[in-house]
Amino acid sequence: MHRNPLEFRALEGLPEIEPGDDLAAHVRRGLQGAALELEAGDVLVVAQKAVSKAEGRFVDLATVVPSGRAIELAAVVRKDPRFVELVLAESSTVVRAVPNILVTRHRCGFVMANAGIDRSNVPTGARDGGEWVLLLPIDADQSARRLSEALGPPGAGWPAVIISDSFGRPWRRGVVNVALGVSGLPALVDLRGTLDREGRVMQSTEVALADAVAAGAGIAMGEAAEGTPVVHVRGVRWRDPAQDGQALVRPFDEDLFR
Amino acid sequence: MHRNPLEFRALEGLPEIEPGDDLAAHVRRGLQGAALELEAGDVLVVAQKAVSKAEGRFVDLATVVPSGRAIELAAVVRKDPRFVELVLAESSTVVRAVPNILVTRHRCGFVMANAGIDRSNVPTGARDGGEWVLLLPIDADQSARRLSEALGPPGAGWPAVIISDSFGRPWRRGVVNVALGVSGLPALVDLRGTLDREGRVMQSTEVALADAVAAGAGIAMGEAAEGTPVVHVRGVRWRDPAQDGQALVRPFDEDLFR
Repeated sequence: MHRNPLEFRALEGLPEIEPGDDLAAHVRRGLQGAALELEAGDVLVVAQKAVSKAEGRFVDLATVVPSGRAIELAAVVRKDPRFVELVLAESSTVVRAVPNILVTRHRCGFVMANAGIDRSNVPTGARDGGEWVLLLPIDADQSARRLSEALGPPGAGWPAVIISDSFGRPWRRGVVNVALGVSGLPALVDLRGTLDREGRVMQSTEVALADAVAAGAGIAMGEAAEGTPVVHVRGVRWRDPAQDGQALVRPFDEDLFR
Repeated sequence: MHRNPLEFRALEGLPEIEPGDDLAAHVRRGLQGAALELEAGDVLVVAQKAVSKAEGRFVDLATVVPSGRAIELAAVVRKDPRFVELVLAESSTVVRAVPNILVTRHRCGFVMANAGIDRSNVPTGARDGGEWVLLLPIDADQSARRLSEALGPPGAGWPAVIISDSFGRPWRRGVVNVALGVSGLPALVDLRGTLDREGRVMQSTEVALADAVAAGAGIAMGEAAEGTPVVHVRGVRWRDPAQDGQALVRPFDEDLFR
């Protein structure tokens, strides 16, 4: 008897997401298009950008007035002072600021480049010619929970949902996807006390399950020719209780590199 | 027409790996047991521990004489001075040393805890009672290449191989698997110049494909009751040329956090 494989499947044919869109309806249509019915234990990974667009987290840089601090910092990092103003407004601390790089601690605790703010296309209904950027969701865990609730139950119960974004790493090149928001599965799996095959208690402690699922989903998102912001994952197993994405944020006082 | 999903399948029933073992033979048997034949584009992810064991990278701490520097550092990090001596011997720089945490830059460039040295069980043929630890492979890229060559060709050509290990992250809790050694696939995928769905050139630059594959494989490795150090991956697609795992190491002079 062999286990089923762990499977990641990008849902194709989703439309460009617009402010106010019902993301759950898009996901349901994507699942139908792939002839998939949700089963217990399924996970849906949704790109942060799609969630932010649906939640209308657009800002037109033309409406932003930079503070003195933003203007100073912008000169250091060589970025638009209005963009830097938004990054500061979304952040609790500046972690590193050098030419072309601005790493901060986002108000939700994520240490990341530019507080996760992306340049964006023009939201529907807005005047073109704006310089639009897109902020992270207000609370990615809540976004994940809402989407899970909208997709469940009946039958299979509520699917687990991960809101993912790509992060750089200080000592490794390239970005990988991590989990900003998590609902319905354990963000961290505790292996403490598990016996390895020699019967010794395992050294390693906690595994960032939701980050690993997000990373795998990133491959499926990235390979399609067009943006495929939703990936269906089947075959993840867990015993630990569900835990939200904040469990993955290392508390400020444990940060050895601030 | 739908794409095939991205699939991760842990090979079950592999024996405990011993020094001198023919890893390729184990992998072949594992593939047979799972009724899998290698196809072009398949990737095999192998846990570093299995590779290190096959390569005989065991050291008995009883044979290690700590230097003065190791004794001093051991007092700071509260670890065995002989263990710290080995970590220093495997490292070019100490990155952070506080109680219970010793992060160094491994001689191959990886910034990681304890230079990747794990406690281990007794290698076959060795006297029991030793305090055995296991070092990283001498050159994980070379280990990956050797395994790929031993598994290929004919027919499907040489499979891609990733040697993976679990790494902590400075600002996120929990470990995820990353790629130490890579053969036959691009460690980094360059998205510069790719158009997004609105036709704008994408902002994000390089995606750490091999790290994402390693992270996904870590889920499949972790979920089995016993250690399953080899995961077969199907459905990864790439156009970029193959690149080894050293491409993922951020050069020392780009390190903002040293």
